[in-house]
Amino acid sequence: MPDIAEPIQDIAHLGQVELLTPKPAESLWYFVDILGMEAVHSEGQSVYLRGYGDYATTTLKLTEAPDAGVGHIAWRTVSGPALARRVAAIERTGLGIGWSNGDFGHGACYRFRDPDGHEMEIYYDEQRYEAPESLRSTLKNLPMKFPSRGVGVRRTDHLALLCRDVGANRRFATETLGLKLREQVVYENGTKEIGSWMSSGPVHHEVAYVLDVKGMSGRLHHFSLWIDNREDVLRAADIFMENGVFIEAGPSKHNNSQAFYIYSYEPGGNRIEIYTSGFLILTPDFETVVWDESARGTGVYWGAALPDSFLDYATPAAEAAPGDVPVDPVIDPR
Amino acid sequence: MPDIAEPIQDIAHLGQVELLTPKPAESLWYFVDILGMEAVHSEGQSVYLRGYGDYATTTLKLTEAPDAGVGHIAWRTVSGPALARRVAAIERTGLGIGWSNGDFGHGACYRFRDPDGHEMEIYYDEQRYEAPESLRSTLKNLPMKFPSRGVGVRRTDHLALLCRDVGANRRFATETLGLKLREQVVYENGTKEIGSWMSSGPVHHEVAYVLDVKGMSGRLHHFSLWIDNREDVLRAADIFMENGVFIEAGPSKHNNSQAFYIYSYEPGGNRIEIYTSGFLILTPDFETVVWDESARGTGVYWGAALPDSFLDYATPAAEAAPGDVPVDPVIDPR
Amino acid sequence: MPDIAEPIQDIAHLGQVELLTPKPAESLWYFVDILGMEAVHSEGQSVYLRGYGDYATTTLKLTEAPDAGVGHIAWRTVSGPALARRVAAIERTGLGIGWSNGDFGHGACYRFRDPDGHEMEIYYDEQRYEAPESLRSTLKNLPMKFPSRGVGVRRTDHLALLCRDVGANRRFATETLGLKLREQVVYENGTKEIGSWMSSGPVHHEVAYVLDVKGMSGRLHHFSLWIDNREDVLRAADIFMENGVFIEAGPSKHNNSQAFYIYSYEPGGNRIEIYTSGFLILTPDFETVVWDESARGTGVYWGAALPDSFLDYATPAAEAAPGDVPVDPVIDPR
Amino acid sequence: MPDIAEPIQDIAHLGQVELLTPKPAESLWYFVDILGMEAVHSEGQSVYLRGYGDYATTTLKLTEAPDAGVGHIAWRTVSGPALARRVAAIERTGLGIGWSNGDFGHGACYRFRDPDGHEMEIYYDEQRYEAPESLRSTLKNLPMKFPSRGVGVRRTDHLALLCRDVGANRRFATETLGLKLREQVVYENGTKEIGSWMSSGPVHHEVAYVLDVKGMSGRLHHFSLWIDNREDVLRAADIFMENGVFIEAGPSKHNNSQAFYIYSYEPGGNRIEIYTSGFLILTPDFETVVWDESARGTGVYWGAALPDSFLDYATPAAEAAPGDVPVDPVIDPR
Repeated sequence: MPDIAEPIQDIAHLGQVELLTPKPAESLWYFVDILGMEAVHSEGQSVYLRGYGDYATTTLKLTEAPDAGVGHIAWRTVSGPALARRVAAIERTGLGIGWSNGDFGHGACYRFRDPDGHEMEIYYDEQRYEAPESLRSTLKNLPMKFPSRGVGVRRTDHLALLCRDVGANRRFATETLGLKLREQVVYENGTKEIGSWMSSGPVHHEVAYVLDVKGMSGRLHHFSLWIDNREDVLRAADIFMENGVFIEAGPSKHNNSQAFYIYSYEPGGNRIEIYTSGFLILTPDFETVVWDESARGTGVYWGAALPDSFLDYATPAAEAAPGDVPVDPVIDPR
Repeated sequence: MPDIAEPIQDIAHLGQVELLTPKPAESLWYFVDILGMEAVHSEGQSVYLRGYGDYATTTLKLTEAPDAGVGHIAWRTVSGPALARRVAAIERTGLGIGWSNGDFGHGACYRFRDPDGHEMEIYYDEQRYEAPESLRSTLKNLPMKFPSRGVGVRRTDHLALLCRDVGANRRFATETLGLKLREQVVYENGTKEIGSWMSSGPVHHEVAYVLDVKGMSGRLHHFSLWIDNREDVLRAADIFMENGVFIEAGPSKHNNSQAFYIYSYEPGGNRIEIYTSGFLILTPDFETVVWDESARGTGVYWGAALPDSFLDYATPAAEAAPGDVPVDPVIDPR
Repeated sequence: MPDIAEPIQDIAHLGQVELLTPKPAESLWYFVDILGMEAVHSEGQSVYLRGYGDYATTTLKLTEAPDAGVGHIAWRTVSGPALARRVAAIERTGLGIGWSNGDFGHGACYRFRDPDGHEMEIYYDEQRYEAPESLRSTLKNLPMKFPSRGVGVRRTDHLALLCRDVGANRRFATETLGLKLREQVVYENGTKEIGSWMSSGPVHHEVAYVLDVKGMSGRLHHFSLWIDNREDVLRAADIFMENGVFIEAGPSKHNNSQAFYIYSYEPGGNRIEIYTSGFLILTPDFETVVWDESARGTGVYWGAALPDSFLDYATPAAEAAPGDVPVDPVIDPR
Repeated sequence: MPDIAEPIQDIAHLGQVELLTPKPAESLWYFVDILGMEAVHSEGQSVYLRGYGDYATTTLKLTEAPDAGVGHIAWRTVSGPALARRVAAIERTGLGIGWSNGDFGHGACYRFRDPDGHEMEIYYDEQRYEAPESLRSTLKNLPMKFPSRGVGVRRTDHLALLCRDVGANRRFATETLGLKLREQVVYENGTKEIGSWMSSGPVHHEVAYVLDVKGMSGRLHHFSLWIDNREDVLRAADIFMENGVFIEAGPSKHNNSQAFYIYSYEPGGNRIEIYTSGFLILTPDFETVVWDESARGTGVYWGAALPDSFLDYATPAAEAAPGDVPVDPVIDPR
């Protein structure tokens, strides 16, 4: 596994994420009309979406399913040899499933599970997005025209997964996938690992593993999309309020990551974060920042404290979602 | 007319403005799809529009006409008696035309012209906006749902009119309408009045009169719409660029008014400003700020200098618009 | 009394506010180093302060006293005759105290109390601020150089006063002072007036009266200072956190006023709001917006709910301040 | 040399940059009082500075010299072996100078020149910043307290160097240092390389080489510092204007990099950019974006066009700086 003296980055970035929803039409309304994403393809029970700044053709797959949650989580490697190295490492753990011909938007991928059971994929070949004439940007270096509808999310940022054993999953992510550990929440005098935030490169985190307080497996805490400015997060709050989208927390500033965020629930029930700012980790000898009970506090630097549901609720839900989750969001009449 | 020791404010605010356009469909696209205004009514060759924060049912009337320019400019008074006082004052100037039954959205109005010939109206009775269910805001104090499309202008702010004799029009506005003089640009050792900015109350200016360098009469320099944040102006620049809307100047900060702005041309040719920030004039003994050649500089505090077209171009145009005005803006395919 | 058919605005704006503090040095550090205000004069136990955008020489008087709270609240009229009219009206209520020679920064003023006992003044003559060379702005229309230290508040905006009988004080403010009623919170089927927000002109409110849940008199809920951008409020939160200033609520968006805010406690114990955005009331026939229990909700449109202390705590304090109020803020070592 | 099939990132990030100034006191005022950087050390004719978000003890060395310009430019590697690999590669080019014991803040470094003669260094060992108590942040993951004075730059972002032969320097940077080519401006049907932007990882560019129109060698075009929000750039413009700092261009948005910026001259004459937003390059197969004459346009996406001085002026200056560069900026009297 990685030579400590020689950091190797085999994972390039978080690739496609698949979200499951029992309300596909309403969820599509949320991602397209409210968040401003673009639907590029549909196939079977799935619609493939993208942010205007994503380089890949698609980064979010929305699939109808009985329960909300995360389907697969795909990682892109920096090269073909890097893919081979990571597949070999995964196979050594016994968590590998096998090769697949790939999904819409990317080529052959190797399927596996993390120790908690979340379904994952790793691949290198990807279909670069080529915008149709009507969606071509006037900026040569922007893959797609900036949308003027809704929140206007730019690209996928990260996701947070719940699990039974944070340490086991954190070790898998760092030792087998080669991610770097950025921040941790560890309680009870360093004996209880509550959460670990990891990334392949300078982005603060691409995945977080957090303890599932319900003791369940394979659940999604939230999926996070990037926008460029904090004002856009404030504007998102207005848009959510005006369109019946439930805001769970924020706008506020995290203490870990320093990012500015708002959490809402898409109509299918998955928690979605709109996220910006924060900091890049450019230094190669960054020391993992560890927060204990007192340092972590309420999980925010300032602004709205995270509510109880932030700890209790995840998808698929252990029980019915909190009463204040709108079950029938108003569908935009346009 | 106004007792100097006793300031009386008879004009409440700038009311409805009518813009003329030779390209009504394209202009409507600009105001509705790009700026995010709402069309509430159409009648004859006109469409009636509003910003989400306007209290009146309509504040912008868009009328098909052979040439771009401003149709009528309507002022609302603070009361019925105030209307009577102002009408009497206007009639004493010989510039009155007479009473009209009013247009869509407001009641009886008195029509007149300013000394330069711009057609104006003054009225008190107005139709308050009542949003239909689908456009009702979740904020009790907001007349209409915040739009999540385009720039999202909130309300009318002001307009700037060109004229042959700034002094004559400024005196009419202050002495007959009762507006207050806020800022002036006066060149050639105080002998040449280039522009005067006036308002009825704390808003910095609701109308400006600026010298027409072409020596024409009755022309419009720009019509200005308010948004709440400077970030929204920056976002507007992106939206304009991506949709083929010509940006003439900005985003920048004015020196007079201190406001942050961007000027674009709507497809019909009228110059439209998106405007925010600036300052309120709350003090009752505000001293008019006068800028001479050196103080005025390029007309900006920082940022893009105003180009030559900003001085030369107005509607109706003296000649063909500058070559870089898009003649065929891309129509949003949605 | 004001003729209903003829709205007359005799009050120009909220003038000087005096805050009392048992910790004058620490409070001065808060207003000067943290908020970025300028100290222009000191006399006796008082220091006179101003924001860079205030037209008056001073708008905030900070006075050493055994307990925190508000000293006097001064209103400026639009003219001398307006002052005479308002004094006559006040005298008719029996709440008048008498003329005084005025304080630093303004001329003769008439002293009185509102029905709840808050000490007030009304005046017209005021000393316009003339910046010394080192504080002169490069903008002709800005009274003072924009400060590059701390939060950078621009000007006084409003204050909120607690009282035993909101209706009595609201009637005094509207009928005797001539303010206009903008928004109200009324509970128990319209029988219990919780709060009323009023202003002299387009500014949303210059004073609010809110029910004192402790049944005390003459207390201050908060004093509010304006800054130009919501980003400045977010930046203020960082500055407060880094300098040990207690943040009670926000950054969030109010539902009434639509403003974006953060509440902190200055070291003397007074609650100070940093405030921006919101809306202007330009329409002369604005209908007071009334919020009942369900519409008012937690008092925010989105973001951090207002905590219990927001209802319970005011100055002078009924009991010791909440435990989380820093008693010894770190003094800036510069 | 880098194996094409196996991208290896040996350079972690741009490390310390040394700027030369003939006006050390005034330049120090600019970086400390106006930009809000912290001076951590002084030695000989140099002062060592840092941004509040920099991990290294110092990232900017300001050295008195007869002429403005860039002293050395130091690159940090990801590890010791990476350092050895890069030194070997540099030595093969004949551009190496030799090992040095290192400067304040970092350990042994290898000195060399780029083909154009700019002095460079490469190192791995670095002194992590440990804030003194008074400068400790309340955020565990922030190296230093957020400053509340001036512009508040967070960290070094990049620099742009002028050179006689862009291709030669671009090849050195990509082939010998291992940077990746992100964007280029190439004129005259692809025959004339005007500029090339490169980075080691996801940051858009850490160095740009641009053709020196004066045909000189070793010059600096600009040094760029990051702040978190576009509003902070607008605020910087106000601060520059109020303090006599010359603004050459912006606030505007670049077309290449998509970043939002303002360029000013520090009193010593070096061009300094305040920079934010833009985009990260996370995809491993990013295709270099190439701009020709028509695509590049005026070099901005919107906003103020870049003036002639932006092409003509660099440090050391070929001739006297433009007349509008303030020679004696007002020194902050505090």
